[in-house]
Amino acid sequence: MSSTATDQPAPDGAARLRRQIEFVVETEKLKGVLRRTAPIREARRENAAEHSWSLGVMALVLAEHADADLDQLKVLRLLLVHDLVEIDAGDTFCFDETGNATRAEREAAAAERLFGLLPGPQAGEFRALWEEFESGASAEARFARALDRLLPVLQNFHNGGGTWREHRVTPGQAFERSRPIEAGSASLWRYAEDLLREAESRGHLRRDDP
Amino acid sequence: MSSTATDQPAPDGAARLRRQIEFVVETEKLKGVLRRTAPIREARRENAAEHSWSLGVMALVLAEHADADLDQLKVLRLLLVHDLVEIDAGDTFCFDETGNATRAEREAAAAERLFGLLPGPQAGEFRALWEEFESGASAEARFARALDRLLPVLQNFHNGGGTWREHRVTPGQAFERSRPIEAGSASLWRYAEDLLREAESRGHLRRDDP
Repeated sequence: MSSTATDQPAPDGAARLRRQIEFVVETEKLKGVLRRTAPIREARRENAAEHSWSLGVMALVLAEHADADLDQLKVLRLLLVHDLVEIDAGDTFCFDETGNATRAEREAAAAERLFGLLPGPQAGEFRALWEEFESGASAEARFARALDRLLPVLQNFHNGGGTWREHRVTPGQAFERSRPIEAGSASLWRYAEDLLREAESRGHLRRDDP
Repeated sequence: MSSTATDQPAPDGAARLRRQIEFVVETEKLKGVLRRTAPIREARRENAAEHSWSLGVMALVLAEHADADLDQLKVLRLLLVHDLVEIDAGDTFCFDETGNATRAEREAAAAERLFGLLPGPQAGEFRALWEEFESGASAEARFARALDRLLPVLQNFHNGGGTWREHRVTPGQAFERSRPIEAGSASLWRYAEDLLREAESRGHLRRDDP
């Protein structure tokens, strides 16, 4: 565990462990944060914890499709942690303009509280992971973000349109929303484009694109 | 991605990706496999996918408590993959003697089918991860198994007894079930022992231990 500068003295081992367990107990709340998309073949909204697990599996299975040679451990760390702020900030639906206007602020406050439960150096490390994912500053973050956008495409496609159909999403909106896949993986983007075109031809996306 | 010997020729890139996506789509089914334990503060059984995510977060947060210096990427790979066989084999409750008698056989058949969806070399790699977790042969697998046993202790403790109370589990059974924590981490085992003793004193565990 690398350590970073901090104002707090390092607590003793038992006290560190108590704080870490308190954090783990708090993270259970992510299992109650519902996303809009449903797991494939299920008629319920998935929660952000099981969503994050899927992204981890995808990172293992699809590693060879990253455009750059990646630190796979970093990719997994980013993915496992990236949605934790939703415990306080909630899941903001991607097509909700009002919610997205305040999302950054709400999530920053959430990061402050949640990662602050961890002992000093670790708090900073976890917060840095979340910031790295959000900014897409590294190749690892761009690949992680690509997977985060690919999964709902797979889910909606295999759920007969899913949230695309439910929210009358246009082809233009769906392509725009999926575009970050391109920044992480050329081959996954080609795959997603094909799927979106097929979804359009099946009538999963609204036809009257403005 | 390291490759292992296989009889199958390597498929071309697009065909490989199709098989990998087919596997990812199949793994969605783990979100429908229910465990006995409930997430903390929730009145529903958790599924094996969100459970696996929790273990990944724990592996990151609690890494310093492993007895040995571990390959953290390996620990995460083991944890993300270890429950996939339950898609076919189901979750076997730890105190179900009949179910546990046939568990190994059912899970081996599940591993054969599920990991066989992946292209050649990857199929073998994923199956090897599952086997390593099951056998506890490496220090990484023993730490992963320790986390897998620690999580339900935390959940039951913070749920006022949870499945211990529901299934009238004795202190002897709870300690025995949690014992693999000791093989992965001395400090986590001390923590778990304290929690189990406290659970006993709170009446979460059956008092008439045979």
